[in-house]
Amino acid sequence: MLARKCVRALDYNCNLYYLFLYQKHYNENVFLTLISSAGRLDGKMREKTLTMDTLNPQVKAVEYAVRGPIVIKAGEIERYLEEGGTKPFSEVIKANIGDAHAMGQQPITFLRQVVALCTFPELMDSPSFPEDAKWRARRILQGCGGHSLGSYSASPGVECIRKDIAAYIEQRDEGVPSDWENIYLTTGASDGIMTILRLLVSGKDSSRTGVMIPIPQYPLYSAAISEMDAVQVNYYLDEDNCWALDINELHRAHQAAKQHCQPRVICIINPGNPTGQVQSKKCIEEVLHFAYEENLFVMSDEVYQDNVYAPDCQFHSFKKVLYEMGPEYFSSVELVSFHSTSKGYTGECGFRGGYMEVINMDPEVKAQLVKLLSVRLCPPLAGQAAMDVIVNPPQPEEHTFKQFHQEKSSVLGALAEKAKLTEQILNAVPGIKCNPVQGAMYAFPRIFIPPKAVEEAKALGMQPDMLYCLRLLEETGICVVPGSGFGQKDRTYHFRMTILPSIEKLNVLLGKVRDFHIRFLKEYSGLE
Amino acid sequence: MLARKCVRALDYNCNLYYLFLYQKHYNENVFLTLISSAGRLDGKMREKTLTMDTLNPQVKAVEYAVRGPIVIKAGEIERYLEEGGTKPFSEVIKANIGDAHAMGQQPITFLRQVVALCTFPELMDSPSFPEDAKWRARRILQGCGGHSLGSYSASPGVECIRKDIAAYIEQRDEGVPSDWENIYLTTGASDGIMTILRLLVSGKDSSRTGVMIPIPQYPLYSAAISEMDAVQVNYYLDEDNCWALDINELHRAHQAAKQHCQPRVICIINPGNPTGQVQSKKCIEEVLHFAYEENLFVMSDEVYQDNVYAPDCQFHSFKKVLYEMGPEYFSSVELVSFHSTSKGYTGECGFRGGYMEVINMDPEVKAQLVKLLSVRLCPPLAGQAAMDVIVNPPQPEEHTFKQFHQEKSSVLGALAEKAKLTEQILNAVPGIKCNPVQGAMYAFPRIFIPPKAVEEAKALGMQPDMLYCLRLLEETGICVVPGSGFGQKDRTYHFRMTILPSIEKLNVLLGKVRDFHIRFLKEYSGLE
Repeated sequence: MLARKCVRALDYNCNLYYLFLYQKHYNENVFLTLISSAGRLDGKMREKTLTMDTLNPQVKAVEYAVRGPIVIKAGEIERYLEEGGTKPFSEVIKANIGDAHAMGQQPITFLRQVVALCTFPELMDSPSFPEDAKWRARRILQGCGGHSLGSYSASPGVECIRKDIAAYIEQRDEGVPSDWENIYLTTGASDGIMTILRLLVSGKDSSRTGVMIPIPQYPLYSAAISEMDAVQVNYYLDEDNCWALDINELHRAHQAAKQHCQPRVICIINPGNPTGQVQSKKCIEEVLHFAYEENLFVMSDEVYQDNVYAPDCQFHSFKKVLYEMGPEYFSSVELVSFHSTSKGYTGECGFRGGYMEVINMDPEVKAQLVKLLSVRLCPPLAGQAAMDVIVNPPQPEEHTFKQFHQEKSSVLGALAEKAKLTEQILNAVPGIKCNPVQGAMYAFPRIFIPPKAVEEAKALGMQPDMLYCLRLLEETGICVVPGSGFGQKDRTYHFRMTILPSIEKLNVLLGKVRDFHIRFLKEYSGLE
Repeated sequence: MLARKCVRALDYNCNLYYLFLYQKHYNENVFLTLISSAGRLDGKMREKTLTMDTLNPQVKAVEYAVRGPIVIKAGEIERYLEEGGTKPFSEVIKANIGDAHAMGQQPITFLRQVVALCTFPELMDSPSFPEDAKWRARRILQGCGGHSLGSYSASPGVECIRKDIAAYIEQRDEGVPSDWENIYLTTGASDGIMTILRLLVSGKDSSRTGVMIPIPQYPLYSAAISEMDAVQVNYYLDEDNCWALDINELHRAHQAAKQHCQPRVICIINPGNPTGQVQSKKCIEEVLHFAYEENLFVMSDEVYQDNVYAPDCQFHSFKKVLYEMGPEYFSSVELVSFHSTSKGYTGECGFRGGYMEVINMDPEVKAQLVKLLSVRLCPPLAGQAAMDVIVNPPQPEEHTFKQFHQEKSSVLGALAEKAKLTEQILNAVPGIKCNPVQGAMYAFPRIFIPPKAVEEAKALGMQPDMLYCLRLLEETGICVVPGSGFGQKDRTYHFRMTILPSIEKLNVLLGKVRDFHIRFLKEYSGLE
């Protein structure tokens, strides 16, 4: 009784939950002593140190739609279903994030064998592990302190892995040289992108740093720009032209930005996220020429380099194109290219592996980069090992080649099929228009939202495509991300969905999207 | 010939290396075309976008001695020896960084078994893996998307691992409640510390944020403070009192800081890095009372909580002490505690595992924290799995308990022995004074440096203990970090060395330090 009274007295500024737990562990005598403190608390409300008012405003400004409110809602619905709640659907299908394994894609056996061998070297004696995997694991461990995955690596990564990456790039780019000392392993590509932006952007600068990014973009970029208080300079991709990058638009955006900031960086995502386009060689040349002329630092996000499906498209690395433009360009344009274990045919997101190749960086700045990386010590070693398998896969003469090749082709073949399927089904829906998914892992269809629905969304204080996606989630269990989370031209609306679910599930998903869209149009515009 | 001339013309602002490689791949005709560009380059030196002048000045200000110049020098010497060069020693002993496996410590078998099973679940069928490891791995995989370590987890980490951590904390703290939703997995402790500071520090703030840190400190703190443009507020640990934290010194530092910034955070490292002290319960109470009175956010770095060697010392978590101070404190002081897989008895640095527990954080701010974490997607899954083994180790009734317990005791027993040995041998050297290594993994002895050596260092533009450590490295191959990299009182000099080498190697190392120190004193002061 006394305890309860006491709890009530403290209630308003204490965490009731803790107090009740406290009660479980300490006896009532302890609670007697609370009366005095309760009295004190009555008189003085102790303010928190960290509140929404005192929070770093740059953190407040950050937005990251891929894991934003709609995904939180999806999680709530999932839990509700698990606890026996009922909905007009039996499961939530998460097509919001490029997380292949979560959607049922199987890991590449060989990659996992190598990482398991590195993790538990006693397996070297096991006859069930192939020799091809064993020698790779031994070689990686030779490069690790104490021959253990549990030691820190050098901050830029394990030396032999850096060398393997450089060799891989040379092969990919048909002989264009790659220096292993320009390779830095990262904790996923996101970490590399943030680190390079950190070098370029000073919060203190009087003339603020402009960072050119495509719209639509992957929201890591806008989030990083907010967090670092840089200026986001939007260049719009051309939806009517398969989301191609238009060089005139780059000039326009750059000219306009120069009025209020100092544009110093251009970010490119190729193949595109969320837009799925694959850039032509000509387009890349134009971008590089532009960067050369305008003295821009180039950040080329090439994490989807293995994800090209359209038969008339091909991945061209920015580095190779730069090289072919001649030494005037190749010896001067500062370029960083990013890659990752999370995408491609491996989809190893959880390993947080990645690398960046840095071209033409001032040597003193490079030393500063290494220093900055060293503060976080090193990227996870298992991710580094996974990256090594990607750049040093089984060769035709190795026993493991056949299975590896089958698994790789199966993943990429299915993705190509799903890319086609998604485009076809969506384009058959009235009021949806979807560009071909040439590459990457996403469709970014444009959706017609009737004016009445736009008004309703505005009244609710949300973006119209957020309203659309929330309704889609609540009525069908399908979780996609509103286009407004990626950026889009005013008065156009989109959503991003991954093409990762299995073909069966993707068919179900697309059918549900179609039915929902038709219902939605009917409800808001009376169309049928 | 033409090509060579052309190369010479371009030489001054082109990367010669690339040009030669270019020559390898393209024929002389290509070089003919270079003449025009060479002409152009003659007329106009294209400036780099990112130079030391344009680099983010906050990055420039960052220092991180643990991987600083002395370690780079050590790497050079290692390579020189490998290539057959001769030195007065045959190997470099790296006692600069708390990297246990690199120093030969063996991984805990059970931990690696669980992570290997998670990595390659086909091993579930292998009779050579214990059931205790299999059920843990199965449970972790159940919590992963698609039951794969290759999927992203929720940004705060895998739910069942968060729950295991909360249960572990409750047990460690003898029943003090821990809510799993307050647990956030991190990419090593460094990542968590940076993230929390990011919430607290705004580069824009007119009244700049003061962050109180111990001196000597682990240089992650000063590096983060520089990078974020916060104000470093030093409180000095009491060397004459075993590096204890003195509450009067906290008051002094806080009062002084209030003149030029707004102190909002206090960081504590317990057990201490680099100082090795273990804080008493009374000391922790005083710190918490101080934080309560001064409205400071408390960051408690407890990554060495399992590394306590002195028989009269015991680890007390800040959280438990806060709880025992009563609900007035426990319901109001904002506290974050950090832990890691990298230290303790596991020493799994390469896995980049860790967690933080967040107490009394404003719920809206917590949502902002989750948003910020989500931009980097999630901590590496293998590191999360490793963390799970640490908080959910084999129990006495399990078959694996005996081996696990033996391995754990053997590591911790050896560390305790090495802590004692280090203190004893160092204290027997004239001009060296070393406090007891009560915990953590380092000795931080004070070294007498003769005035003549101090002068010589000044003439060379370096700190006297940097000169000392460089000489030690060059003459003996022992790599330790100068005290100036951690901070120390003016006109006192120290170095930090780890106690991680094997006992045999540590004996050799300490003997060499002794002989070097005596030689050094003799050389600069004629003492014998």
